[in-house]
Amino acid sequence: MRVLVCQLNPTIGDFSGNADKILSSLEKARKESAELALFSELVISGYPPEDLLMHRHFVEESERVLHEKILPATKGLAAIVGLVRKNPNKGEKPLFNSAAIIFDGKLLGFHDKILLPTYDVFDERRYFEPGREIKLWQICGKKVAVFICEDIWEHAALVGFTQYFRDPVKEVAPFHPDLALNLSSSPYQFQKPELRLHVSCLAAKTLRVPLVMCCQVGGNDQLVFDGYSHVVNGEGKTVFMARGFEEDRSLVDLNRLKVPLAPHLDPMEDLYRALVLGTRDYFYKQGFKKGCLGLSGGIDSAVVACIAQEALGKENVLGISMPSRYSSKGSVQDAEELARNLGIDYLNISIEKPFTVYLELLEPHFQGKPWDVTEENLQARLRGMILMAISNKMGYIVLSTGNKSEMAVGYCTLYGDMAGGLGVISDVAKMQVYALARWINRNREIIPASSLTKAPSAELRANQKDTDSLPEYPVLDAVLQGYVEDFLSPQEIADKHHLSLNLVENIVRRIHLAEYKRRQGPPGIRVSKKAFRVGRRYPIVQKWK
Amino acid sequence: MRVLVCQLNPTIGDFSGNADKILSSLEKARKESAELALFSELVISGYPPEDLLMHRHFVEESERVLHEKILPATKGLAAIVGLVRKNPNKGEKPLFNSAAIIFDGKLLGFHDKILLPTYDVFDERRYFEPGREIKLWQICGKKVAVFICEDIWEHAALVGFTQYFRDPVKEVAPFHPDLALNLSSSPYQFQKPELRLHVSCLAAKTLRVPLVMCCQVGGNDQLVFDGYSHVVNGEGKTVFMARGFEEDRSLVDLNRLKVPLAPHLDPMEDLYRALVLGTRDYFYKQGFKKGCLGLSGGIDSAVVACIAQEALGKENVLGISMPSRYSSKGSVQDAEELARNLGIDYLNISIEKPFTVYLELLEPHFQGKPWDVTEENLQARLRGMILMAISNKMGYIVLSTGNKSEMAVGYCTLYGDMAGGLGVISDVAKMQVYALARWINRNREIIPASSLTKAPSAELRANQKDTDSLPEYPVLDAVLQGYVEDFLSPQEIADKHHLSLNLVENIVRRIHLAEYKRRQGPPGIRVSKKAFRVGRRYPIVQKWK
Repeated sequence: MRVLVCQLNPTIGDFSGNADKILSSLEKARKESAELALFSELVISGYPPEDLLMHRHFVEESERVLHEKILPATKGLAAIVGLVRKNPNKGEKPLFNSAAIIFDGKLLGFHDKILLPTYDVFDERRYFEPGREIKLWQICGKKVAVFICEDIWEHAALVGFTQYFRDPVKEVAPFHPDLALNLSSSPYQFQKPELRLHVSCLAAKTLRVPLVMCCQVGGNDQLVFDGYSHVVNGEGKTVFMARGFEEDRSLVDLNRLKVPLAPHLDPMEDLYRALVLGTRDYFYKQGFKKGCLGLSGGIDSAVVACIAQEALGKENVLGISMPSRYSSKGSVQDAEELARNLGIDYLNISIEKPFTVYLELLEPHFQGKPWDVTEENLQARLRGMILMAISNKMGYIVLSTGNKSEMAVGYCTLYGDMAGGLGVISDVAKMQVYALARWINRNREIIPASSLTKAPSAELRANQKDTDSLPEYPVLDAVLQGYVEDFLSPQEIADKHHLSLNLVENIVRRIHLAEYKRRQGPPGIRVSKKAFRVGRRYPIVQKWK
Repeated sequence: MRVLVCQLNPTIGDFSGNADKILSSLEKARKESAELALFSELVISGYPPEDLLMHRHFVEESERVLHEKILPATKGLAAIVGLVRKNPNKGEKPLFNSAAIIFDGKLLGFHDKILLPTYDVFDERRYFEPGREIKLWQICGKKVAVFICEDIWEHAALVGFTQYFRDPVKEVAPFHPDLALNLSSSPYQFQKPELRLHVSCLAAKTLRVPLVMCCQVGGNDQLVFDGYSHVVNGEGKTVFMARGFEEDRSLVDLNRLKVPLAPHLDPMEDLYRALVLGTRDYFYKQGFKKGCLGLSGGIDSAVVACIAQEALGKENVLGISMPSRYSSKGSVQDAEELARNLGIDYLNISIEKPFTVYLELLEPHFQGKPWDVTEENLQARLRGMILMAISNKMGYIVLSTGNKSEMAVGYCTLYGDMAGGLGVISDVAKMQVYALARWINRNREIIPASSLTKAPSAELRANQKDTDSLPEYPVLDAVLQGYVEDFLSPQEIADKHHLSLNLVENIVRRIHLAEYKRRQGPPGIRVSKKAFRVGRRYPIVQKWK
């Protein structure tokens, strides 16, 4: 059986554009004599459409595309296409997350997703009724089991905060399918491609047949879908792997499965490419081209500049150095050198004048109170204001450069360095930012070495160091990982890393206190197991910690 | 049967404080010879705890409070207390939203919430497994049906985007209870108290017995709980109603139900009190006392100032007029007069100097491009910066004054007038802001009459009027209601209000385009059926409209 694995990058709600991609894929399938074209979960609308699903016309449009555009284009071909459809029965929720099973212009029926993830970034129980039935489909003379994404994850016991009552893989095994297909929209997180492959392997091994997983690719708001569609054989060995982080429509002949591959996955390269794709799609899918960012000379803005240059092209990126009386000469030089290395546009706009004016303006109202964080925030906000003015006047989107570690504990200024349309590395912890920088510099020095070696500083007062206010980053990041990603208690974290309970509790308290800041931060690209905001929903007002 | 209806205001995760409130209520119950003390849904942890529920220790602490503090305090008394507990069985989710049924220091068992709202502001399927069983409890010689909140709403067919398979009211009716109890945490929205009463009446009528509903009261982040616990008799008539918007522990003797009341509910007064309570609890529960806001002389900031003064006390509110070259004399006078009428502190800080400095600083980089929205945003951001500096230095929380209509279409400046810790009226549409202002002025002129009568203007350029950029507010608000709250299509809205389809589609497009701004707005107090952000989750990047 010849299968075209159609790994597409749909845009949410772009029914016309998404349909075009699907139709051209069907055309390609026919040209290449494929018998089956396999698409990803909710490919007609893009995943996840969120509350757009509550508009009746949105769902009707999805069904209209299926019936009026896709069905007529499948003459002589089988196709399996993910879409939202109305739940025709009485049910708690009025929609199904479905796969339309199509053969030769006719709709054979639907497989409705059985396991609906409702944890972390997933809200499927908000919209969908779980499918009830799992059965085999007769397609091109084969008995085919069709799954949608999560349907095979319970089998690997890799679901979050959930233990489903059903395991569709186990349920269908006794019926001895010849082939298993999975339509996925599984968002990237660090080392998720490896995990997803593992899940497919387990399912294929249980079913003892090849499994083809077709994945969505592309960035949609905070989520990046990495692609990496694949085929595993009945022994659970990978025999095909599509490209990561780009569209891919590869033909796989299941009768001639190749020898097992050792899939080449470089976690650091994947992380970098996820950030690049997340940035690019955030811009392009909204019709924007140009991005600007503040270049402090530090490691965070350097890494973001590299990502932006890769995502948007050097001619579309503007770096702005905005020194104050506290900026070291070295920092401005590092910023300049980075811009030169990347070939991006560069401006230097001092904030000294407006800073002085504001200090004078406010002084009478400060009642003689001493210099404090107010004046530091002021500098950060004066910079945010410059970036936003350049953005408004010249059509740039501002890229925010804060990392996850500082966002976690609120070591950042609302409306200052937190300003921007997209938080490029806001889900990347500081130590991982360093790792990314080293990866970027693996062949030649793009990021100036001194940005990597100097002690991190916000340079908002004389001789300031991050460690004046924060623990060393390796410690901070370990606590962050333990509390935010692994839900350990402070005591458990202290024990695990041989830290004082007091230190851990202090960091945990700061994580909760900074919730109000993060609530107003720009959307950030999710690349970790547990990203602030999109997958982590905490009250601002609470007294737990 | 004598029931103490314990309408409390818990703080999320404040196990010690919440337990104290529960224990003192049990003490009061004993003193007043009540036989039963009834509490609200999840009273031990406060509702909604969101992802705090994913911390094992959080759930264990909730159960510990029940066993170690509450049980021993119920000697000679029945009590029904809402809490999260572990799901001891295999289940899709590891928790139950439960009511502990207690008599004389002993735990008789749990009623687990059967219907789990997962729509709008509710995410209960994210955490909880639905309860299976509905049975009668033998309490003080009576057969008692216990429900938790949503359990009785399907019976009224008043749930959102959902049609449950079960109707616990109908299920329990054949067993002929003597009494029905409901533990609720039902958030306020405009005219929700009336709706909730209606729901109770329907359930009581079907069961033909009195129903006692105990509601949570207080503000938790964006949600305000209005209280208004009540008792309806078996004919569905209201016989008792607790106070709205404050704690209330009233004794109700079910053997001596009074003659039916005609509950006095003034929707505009309720709206005002919801905003006051939401503001007060946002401050007090975080340990803040003082709020500041920009006073433009317009209607929005005037209404917010009134709410702040009521919530925090006049000595804790600072209004700041920040005129520019475009501010009319009348506006500054109106701001001054309002501050005088309210007795709040008042400052006047002109933004002319920093505005001039910024124009000069940026001019070389603007490449001769004409004056546009950039300079308007600049003014708004200069003001935001002053408010934030005063906030940082003097310990005020900034109150954001934007209304729902302008937030809807993005007629507001990120990091400018959108800056602040709390969006007090960000869920109040402009025409409702006028109605609130008239209500505030019902006895005497607090808000200067000219703030109500002059044409709304942002005063960011000469002779600017809101209607230069927006349709008339009655039109805008009607479209907003149709699209955001009622999920009508543009065509349906155009037909309903006799508007051109083009106009409606233009507004709808702007609503979607402004999603990126709202994502970074301050949390706002939810008072409508469909509030941006907390109950409305849309992608930023999408091409649906």
